[in-house]
Amino acid sequence: MFSITVRDHVMVAHSFRGEVFGPAQRLHGATFVVDARFKRTDLDPDNIVVDIGLATEELRSVLGALNYRNLDEVPEFAGINTSTEFLAKHIADRLVERVHAGRLGEGAKGLSGVEVSLHESHVAWASYERAL
Amino acid sequence: MFSITVRDHVMVAHSFRGEVFGPAQRLHGATFVVDARFKRTDLDPDNIVVDIGLATEELRSVLGALNYRNLDEVPEFAGINTSTEFLAKHIADRLVERVHAGRLGEGAKGLSGVEVSLHESHVAWASYERAL
Amino acid sequence: MFSITVRDHVMVAHSFRGEVFGPAQRLHGATFVVDARFKRTDLDPDNIVVDIGLATEELRSVLGALNYRNLDEVPEFAGINTSTEFLAKHIADRLVERVHAGRLGEGAKGLSGVEVSLHESHVAWASYERAL
Amino acid sequence: MFSITVRDHVMVAHSFRGEVFGPAQRLHGATFVVDARFKRTDLDPDNIVVDIGLATEELRSVLGALNYRNLDEVPEFAGINTSTEFLAKHIADRLVERVHAGRLGEGAKGLSGVEVSLHESHVAWASYERAL
Amino acid sequence: MFSITVRDHVMVAHSFRGEVFGPAQRLHGATFVVDARFKRTDLDPDNIVVDIGLATEELRSVLGALNYRNLDEVPEFAGINTSTEFLAKHIADRLVERVHAGRLGEGAKGLSGVEVSLHESHVAWASYERAL
Amino acid sequence: MFSITVRDHVMVAHSFRGEVFGPAQRLHGATFVVDARFKRTDLDPDNIVVDIGLATEELRSVLGALNYRNLDEVPEFAGINTSTEFLAKHIADRLVERVHAGRLGEGAKGLSGVEVSLHESHVAWASYERAL
Repeated sequence: MFSITVRDHVMVAHSFRGEVFGPAQRLHGATFVVDARFKRTDLDPDNIVVDIGLATEELRSVLGALNYRNLDEVPEFAGINTSTEFLAKHIADRLVERVHAGRLGEGAKGLSGVEVSLHESHVAWASYERAL
Repeated sequence: MFSITVRDHVMVAHSFRGEVFGPAQRLHGATFVVDARFKRTDLDPDNIVVDIGLATEELRSVLGALNYRNLDEVPEFAGINTSTEFLAKHIADRLVERVHAGRLGEGAKGLSGVEVSLHESHVAWASYERAL
Repeated sequence: MFSITVRDHVMVAHSFRGEVFGPAQRLHGATFVVDARFKRTDLDPDNIVVDIGLATEELRSVLGALNYRNLDEVPEFAGINTSTEFLAKHIADRLVERVHAGRLGEGAKGLSGVEVSLHESHVAWASYERAL
Repeated sequence: MFSITVRDHVMVAHSFRGEVFGPAQRLHGATFVVDARFKRTDLDPDNIVVDIGLATEELRSVLGALNYRNLDEVPEFAGINTSTEFLAKHIADRLVERVHAGRLGEGAKGLSGVEVSLHESHVAWASYERAL
Repeated sequence: MFSITVRDHVMVAHSFRGEVFGPAQRLHGATFVVDARFKRTDLDPDNIVVDIGLATEELRSVLGALNYRNLDEVPEFAGINTSTEFLAKHIADRLVERVHAGRLGEGAKGLSGVEVSLHESHVAWASYERAL
Repeated sequence: MFSITVRDHVMVAHSFRGEVFGPAQRLHGATFVVDARFKRTDLDPDNIVVDIGLATEELRSVLGALNYRNLDEVPEFAGINTSTEFLAKHIADRLVERVHAGRLGEGAKGLSGVEVSLHESHVAWASYERAL
């Protein structure tokens, strides 16, 4: 099994609902350092997993829709706790849509899975992994 | 598959028995930077894997039993090589016991696995992964 | 010259005023991983720069006043761009006050300087350095 | 499942063929920080995955054949795009050969898999994982 | 004293002349992870050291002239050992020229110094620091 | 001002005397990830600060005298708190002696200073800086 991973980041505000979140129920924010990992069984004819330039661009584009925003005001997330775990899935799902739409190149159709990890600090991170 | 990981550290002395350990047969020590990863298939009703506050507290508590100790003198480890790999399993098993005892919250009963990684330096680390 | 540094983090929301900030004029957020460095010419009688336990506690306490907050609503920061640079100075100044108040121990009175660095992502950080 | 990982690095020149590589079609270079991970189900009688000293030596030896070289001129790689992904597999395969040859010790025969990751920068890395 | 630092990277091939370089006399390559630090005594009216967006762009532009190149064939470096130390100075000097040319904004004229660090691996880095 | 830094590590046991150390008065241990930074005003004729190969070897040799030891039993440290700060100075002083003895090469005589940093965990480190 092969993989390549590219890293970018996003800076957002949000708040949580539920006692489990304690002080994080207040409006606060986070920098998420985001790692997007693309997996496949065999390399493509160019000897790569996926075009790393396109992977970087598409990750940046997906994050661009979230960057410098208050997630509490994004209609798509109304009534949703935008936890680190949830955002990892949100970003992974958007990347998979783009793979299927051909935006990571024809070769990307050979990908078998995507994993997205969000580092919210030097002591905590979350990830979500799915098949393509 | 979702996961969240929390990080803490522990500083211990110990020695090893067996020629394979070379100079590490002498009493020496290590800082282990410890990553505890909790996995589950679906998020709980709060949209999280586990209460990250409780996960952090329980990891700290498990490490507290080892911190600033000479592991050669801990009765539980008598006659055992407390290798980085072994300690990864020891910590993972203690965390799983606490999950079963309800100390990570009711939601934690939906966890499917735990992985513990111990970084002993910038060039070496070990991990142990188990089902819950 | 000796120094010791301790690390913690804080998660806040805020917005900026001024065209130079581009999209960061919107309400967004950040995790700041904060390094507080304490300097002195000679070690104290215990052979240390400062009690690392107290340094860690006081940094945590200073950050606690900011953590999980929207800085736009903190009265002390009204009308102020709470840039990473500005926050580095704010935190350094609070730490120096605590040194002078004796909260880092008697030995801390021999400190000569403090430097605070805030990492806002894996590709950007800021710092502020001052004499004691 | 247990694992240990050791880290080293290698500095090489190379070029790529194929439009997908854009400016990387020119002769350029990279530092690859290389993580070699060894996996096994149960620990050996010494309570370890593999002799970490031998693992470090063999990784260094495998990288030594590549270090400070222009991969375009290495006969073994003639006509091959020496992508990060490809090199991860190359290094993993060489390590597995050495395990089978007994160079990581008798205990290493209980290993179940090897994963090699190559970090080409702070924002991109690749890996290859295989059974033993 | 305030500072902000931005990070980017560059991938080059080169070789060295001189016995001190040992095997690095052969054509090889490196990824340099580059940190550009900008210093000033007081913050500007926007409460910042320099426009971090412009700083990032100009660093990228300076590195763009080197990226994916064989430095042995860059006329400007003919007969020069393009050591990590030398490249740190080269990049710092180009950034200072751009500050003086106004490309980092009018506010950047208040900068007092620049420091550039190049990480060539996880175990070695170099830096160069100069006044503006 | 130029500098180059090389990194290695050392694993030791020790204990401290003094109430300020709390539980660290017990015999425990640490991994210290050690950064040795060498400074000079101008580069030497080879365009470097110092031979990085020799710098790496000499750092390893200095650390070798401490590695896998219980510092409480090292005669040189009898009655001394071997704090992270103290060890940073100890290592810096040994490196300077080796510079003066010519073990880092003739060019090293142009060095102006040395700084040694010891990372004892992901949240704490110490450094000592001196002129040559």
